[in-house]
Amino acid sequence: MHISEKSKKMGLSPIRRFNELAIKAEERGTKVYRVNIGQPDIATPPCFMEAIRNYDKDVIAYMESRGTDDLVDAVIDYFKRYGIDYEKRNIIITTGGSEALQMVFTTILDEGDEVIVADPYYSNYSTFVLSAGGTIGSIKADAEEGYHYAERERIEQAITDRTRAICCTTPGNPTGDVLTLDEMRMICEIAKEHDLWVIGDEVYREFVYDDEEPASFGMLDEYADRVIITDSVSKRFSACGARIGMVISKNPDIMRGVMKIAQGRLCTSTLEQVGAAALYRLGDDYYDEVRKEYKTRRDVVYEELMKIPGVVCKKPKGAFYVTVKLPVDDIEDFLIFMLNEFSDNGETVMFAPAGDFYVNPNRGMDKMRIAYVLNAEEMRRSVELIRLGLEAYKK
Amino acid sequence: MHISEKSKKMGLSPIRRFNELAIKAEERGTKVYRVNIGQPDIATPPCFMEAIRNYDKDVIAYMESRGTDDLVDAVIDYFKRYGIDYEKRNIIITTGGSEALQMVFTTILDEGDEVIVADPYYSNYSTFVLSAGGTIGSIKADAEEGYHYAERERIEQAITDRTRAICCTTPGNPTGDVLTLDEMRMICEIAKEHDLWVIGDEVYREFVYDDEEPASFGMLDEYADRVIITDSVSKRFSACGARIGMVISKNPDIMRGVMKIAQGRLCTSTLEQVGAAALYRLGDDYYDEVRKEYKTRRDVVYEELMKIPGVVCKKPKGAFYVTVKLPVDDIEDFLIFMLNEFSDNGETVMFAPAGDFYVNPNRGMDKMRIAYVLNAEEMRRSVELIRLGLEAYKK
Repeated sequence: MHISEKSKKMGLSPIRRFNELAIKAEERGTKVYRVNIGQPDIATPPCFMEAIRNYDKDVIAYMESRGTDDLVDAVIDYFKRYGIDYEKRNIIITTGGSEALQMVFTTILDEGDEVIVADPYYSNYSTFVLSAGGTIGSIKADAEEGYHYAERERIEQAITDRTRAICCTTPGNPTGDVLTLDEMRMICEIAKEHDLWVIGDEVYREFVYDDEEPASFGMLDEYADRVIITDSVSKRFSACGARIGMVISKNPDIMRGVMKIAQGRLCTSTLEQVGAAALYRLGDDYYDEVRKEYKTRRDVVYEELMKIPGVVCKKPKGAFYVTVKLPVDDIEDFLIFMLNEFSDNGETVMFAPAGDFYVNPNRGMDKMRIAYVLNAEEMRRSVELIRLGLEAYKK
Repeated sequence: MHISEKSKKMGLSPIRRFNELAIKAEERGTKVYRVNIGQPDIATPPCFMEAIRNYDKDVIAYMESRGTDDLVDAVIDYFKRYGIDYEKRNIIITTGGSEALQMVFTTILDEGDEVIVADPYYSNYSTFVLSAGGTIGSIKADAEEGYHYAERERIEQAITDRTRAICCTTPGNPTGDVLTLDEMRMICEIAKEHDLWVIGDEVYREFVYDDEEPASFGMLDEYADRVIITDSVSKRFSACGARIGMVISKNPDIMRGVMKIAQGRLCTSTLEQVGAAALYRLGDDYYDEVRKEYKTRRDVVYEELMKIPGVVCKKPKGAFYVTVKLPVDDIEDFLIFMLNEFSDNGETVMFAPAGDFYVNPNRGMDKMRIAYVLNAEEMRRSVELIRLGLEAYKK
């Protein structure tokens, strides 16, 4: 029987292989700090479960394909703090940011078309783009420059005659890089010159530190016809398992295309939309508190990383990741050592080897991604364990 | 900016247009019986919400990409009543049957590949198949024969050199046709001869009446290597808004392909899986009760339909649909009449015009689908309204 070429090009997640090693370490009694995936330890705001517990309809029925009025209205209100006026027809609720991206890529990509991304990139883009028959093009970003890539020439170099969109994760996963509003404008200008879509994957929007201001491609009115935002409650509200996301655009063509797919799959889950509407009604205090917590963790992680001889890393400006170059030849070999052989006072740490985040995995062979999803004390210990592990590994 | 060819080929749901007319009728004070969509009025078993209300984790976190152990175990136990032994690796939980179908089609179809289905068919297949770059091929089914299509010659006629799978919805939407286990075996035999996958979309599995026995393609051990089952809690447990489905197969190639996509989109929603696990643990009493209710409705609908002069319809054997040929030239025109002009004692009815269920919509111009999703009394009145409306329309 036939398996499609696009399926063959997709990869299984390598996390599984390493996770097995982590489980074995735990079975030996070793405590494993897991800073490899973006699953925060921060409690989901209780209003989420409260709203769901209070749902009292007898039938858990289909909702509108575009999402419930209640949730869409809450999202519209949320964006007012950014000075953005959306209408209902600009928003379609999806099953996580993942489905939002799948729908967008299916709507804009034909066989052989290309989406360009800052490289390293959020590796699941690859599965979504391949599903749509497309390929990923690389805008080079380097550890030495904090992975900042927002330069006209660098972006234009990546554009080919098959490029259909520039996709920007900002704040960035896996790098923590953040685009300023002026940089977003410059990227839109390039997109306009080359007749491309701009996809702003902004699921970490509020998680920016120091002098960065939360921003959105949606704030650029003059480019609204080519901007597509994908978003999600997962990180913003520490509700990864809710699987509520959305596609947002003022361009009617993309919304019509996304709606066709949305209607095909009927709707997003009813209860999770009820909970998500409550989350979107949280006040600014919530964002301030979470931002403060992640900033503390970021500072601790960076401080500890700087104690590692030979490390290359700039202080990340947003999200909750940092991608770090280490003085090793094969980061996977080092991770296997950490899980199989190393422990300090009965503890070790699991990070994400960075190869999979690169269009060319070889570029990530000496890099790891850390997600600062544990509290500050645990993050300090996690990075200390990497430093101690590296000393042992070098011997 | 570019919109993909596959997106352009997809259609928006026509339901919306008619729904607007229904809303206007309601605004004029007319009661509209809605038998146009497969959203049952039957209460979701309370164990669903109970399980969710009792969920007490602070963080609504990502679950495993394949689904929670708890839900997968419950599904494995459920299938034991069919004498089928599944293991964990044979099951991947999805966001509704919709995502299950999308994942399967993406895994087996390249650009220009074909899936053949009994025609009329569940029209959302079209969106999923087009998303994967494929096309739908037609196995002809006719009102005069109760849409029963399980004949070797008829199926083989539909196979081309680009056919990759035979997709069987059984019990069927929109026809209520049911395959016997022997017919399933014959279809698998054809698939084997032509090296095709068999996709069994079995979301209505228990809803068979009279002397039909619930059955599954999964019961055919000798063809397990080519059988893919898609399933869902939506209809079985009247939980359409839960969006929990699954892909099931003993073929490791398809499961590996589906898992790649499943990992890309991370997971299905956490709470809905908690609720779904409780649903899958319901005993046989539940199925008996629901089957009895739908059978009563089916009998009432058929009895009333037979009172309409010129109607062509055989008594459907399963699911909760019947597709009926009426003595009209343009069923959409008749539906518009029903919503805009007709009422009897302040009541009218909204059915689904059948054009969209056909590969060639012209074949459905004189047919409607009725979903018997309201109670028996309301269903009787709904069909009566169609009869009275038709009399008025003919004048």
